[in-house]
Amino acid sequence: MDLVIPKKDLLRLVARCQGVADKKSAMPALANVLLAAEGNAVRVAATDLYLGVTGQTHADIKTGGTVAVPARDLLERVKAMPDGPIQITTTEGAHTSLKAVGSPRRYTLPGLPGSEFPQLPAPAQDAPSLELPVEQLALLITRTHFSISTDETRAHVNSALFEWAGDRVRMVTTDGHRLSKMEATVSGSSATATMLIPLKAITELRRLAEEARAEKETPMVAITQSGPNAFFNIAGMQFSVKLVDAQFPPYQQVIPSVTERSVRAPRVAFAEALRAIALAANDRTGGVKLSIAPGTLRITSESPDTGAGFDEVAVDYSGPEVTIGFNAKYFLDVLASIDDEEVILGISGELDPAVIRPGSESNQQSYVAVIMPMRI
Amino acid sequence: MDLVIPKKDLLRLVARCQGVADKKSAMPALANVLLAAEGNAVRVAATDLYLGVTGQTHADIKTGGTVAVPARDLLERVKAMPDGPIQITTTEGAHTSLKAVGSPRRYTLPGLPGSEFPQLPAPAQDAPSLELPVEQLALLITRTHFSISTDETRAHVNSALFEWAGDRVRMVTTDGHRLSKMEATVSGSSATATMLIPLKAITELRRLAEEARAEKETPMVAITQSGPNAFFNIAGMQFSVKLVDAQFPPYQQVIPSVTERSVRAPRVAFAEALRAIALAANDRTGGVKLSIAPGTLRITSESPDTGAGFDEVAVDYSGPEVTIGFNAKYFLDVLASIDDEEVILGISGELDPAVIRPGSESNQQSYVAVIMPMRI
Repeated sequence: MDLVIPKKDLLRLVARCQGVADKKSAMPALANVLLAAEGNAVRVAATDLYLGVTGQTHADIKTGGTVAVPARDLLERVKAMPDGPIQITTTEGAHTSLKAVGSPRRYTLPGLPGSEFPQLPAPAQDAPSLELPVEQLALLITRTHFSISTDETRAHVNSALFEWAGDRVRMVTTDGHRLSKMEATVSGSSATATMLIPLKAITELRRLAEEARAEKETPMVAITQSGPNAFFNIAGMQFSVKLVDAQFPPYQQVIPSVTERSVRAPRVAFAEALRAIALAANDRTGGVKLSIAPGTLRITSESPDTGAGFDEVAVDYSGPEVTIGFNAKYFLDVLASIDDEEVILGISGELDPAVIRPGSESNQQSYVAVIMPMRI
Repeated sequence: MDLVIPKKDLLRLVARCQGVADKKSAMPALANVLLAAEGNAVRVAATDLYLGVTGQTHADIKTGGTVAVPARDLLERVKAMPDGPIQITTTEGAHTSLKAVGSPRRYTLPGLPGSEFPQLPAPAQDAPSLELPVEQLALLITRTHFSISTDETRAHVNSALFEWAGDRVRMVTTDGHRLSKMEATVSGSSATATMLIPLKAITELRRLAEEARAEKETPMVAITQSGPNAFFNIAGMQFSVKLVDAQFPPYQQVIPSVTERSVRAPRVAFAEALRAIALAANDRTGGVKLSIAPGTLRITSESPDTGAGFDEVAVDYSGPEVTIGFNAKYFLDVLASIDDEEVILGISGELDPAVIRPGSESNQQSYVAVIMPMRI
């Protein structure tokens, strides 16, 4: 291999692939990124055998070829290069050299022949493909990712349910203590699909979608389901995900269709007060008590070690007084994911889940979070 | 105790004391800060029995008294208060309550009676006091703190030597692999003093001096040596230090009076190249090779795991070629502490220490760093 590529193009691809490479795997090739030069393009790829990511960019190629080099080492060295073109050459032993064109700075890296890098899955030729605005994928993920279970032994909830039914797309996540559901209408597009996307893939998709939004690079993501995999094309990167083969819990049963009391609260002030009072909560449980009374939401906490905290927020509520214990963090995650000025808090009895919705909703979008109470 | 104090004044004092409080001590009182209200002032203090810090500010005091409350918990809660006045009250059991005046937010904290908090040392009435511009103390510390040994079992080098002889002040530190010495002339002030200031005190003094500089609060620091302690008055805070009772190494012997070769190098480009090539150095040793040749300084590194790195910097040198191995971090610490455009690198043989000085020096200031070579 012998090619010249602008630093900024190489950096962008390597940085995006680096998050997927698996530095702790028993299979050393997975800690690498693949560089493949052919025609006038360089392809960069990484995989942990569950996720794969690949992207390509134009380069000035004298001799084609493939090589796999350590992902993190490569990223560090590309970052440390001066701006401008970088020449990459490999020897037969897969030793790879990076050289700043027009500057003495250069590195060599021990690599592996590209043939030792695992093949990434590809969609079947005739697999159907859907198109979704990147904005909408980002919104589905932002509003739900925090309630994915982090328990890797429970694959069916260590993932997000992504459903596409007619012109509605939906993402639902739960960790057993809370649930989030975001739905939106896709204009001019209709499809049917259901997939369980694992947590690590959601984390990477979130990063890709955020970057694509920031760079305003591409308004659409193409989603293709093929065999056990799904493929996401965003901003010139193809992202493959081995879907979870399990049954997501019947989430509709968990979302209360009505709640006895409804409280309209200012989102920022509510979050600020929760954060302040959670300081004095028991470290382990993070539990605070929410009391609603006419016109007022009271937040209290108490811990045997660190004393007590108390605050009040003015809210729109008239009805009897009720006090329920919750994990403050669960509320804070939801309040941070919304951007409405107000939220609507639905509460029933002491043992019933709370429901949070944005203050205003449209036919286009609908969001609900459910939080289980805790005994304090 | 019953008093009202503006949040910003309380926050400043508690934040400054919090760094000294010892959260891991077997003596629980040391994890606290003392609040003492008398007349129209509140005094805040913390100590780990080696260092002490105390400061006071005006407050509206209804009932005086003293109480000790957990330092970190207090700081977090004061930060979480809305801007404006805070009311502090204590009960007989030393339970302390903080309340935002004009807002419902309030906390209670379990405290200890102020009498259980250790007495801080005070200077003898007749102890002589010296005055030094805060700028100068900050400069002495900035240029030398990084080469203090972090080995707590070697008290004589786990500290900085501070000397005042006539109109010259000096700080010297060493960890056995490198040494830094900064000297400056104090105009219109003459004194004689020698003290060994322990690392933790240097860290806190550095913070106080940087804050005082940033706030442009006070141009001078008063230094008083009394018994086994030294006292520093900066920006309204009194800082007491139990000095190390040991013999600092005879540092003059370590600083080469002449070096065989002298290289004038651009500071920023040299540091940038060192940082880039250190990426490819052996993780454990951090060793890079510096080779000087006419007009050129070459930097190379090699590691069995991560390949090799090479760079060159154009320098002012004419003489024979020499190659010596060094720990790149030691050079980077020195280069980051200087602000001159150029540095002068003094080098002799392969087994001799290197010397770094700023590119230009005055009679007012003199700095030298010595770095031992390593075999690579």
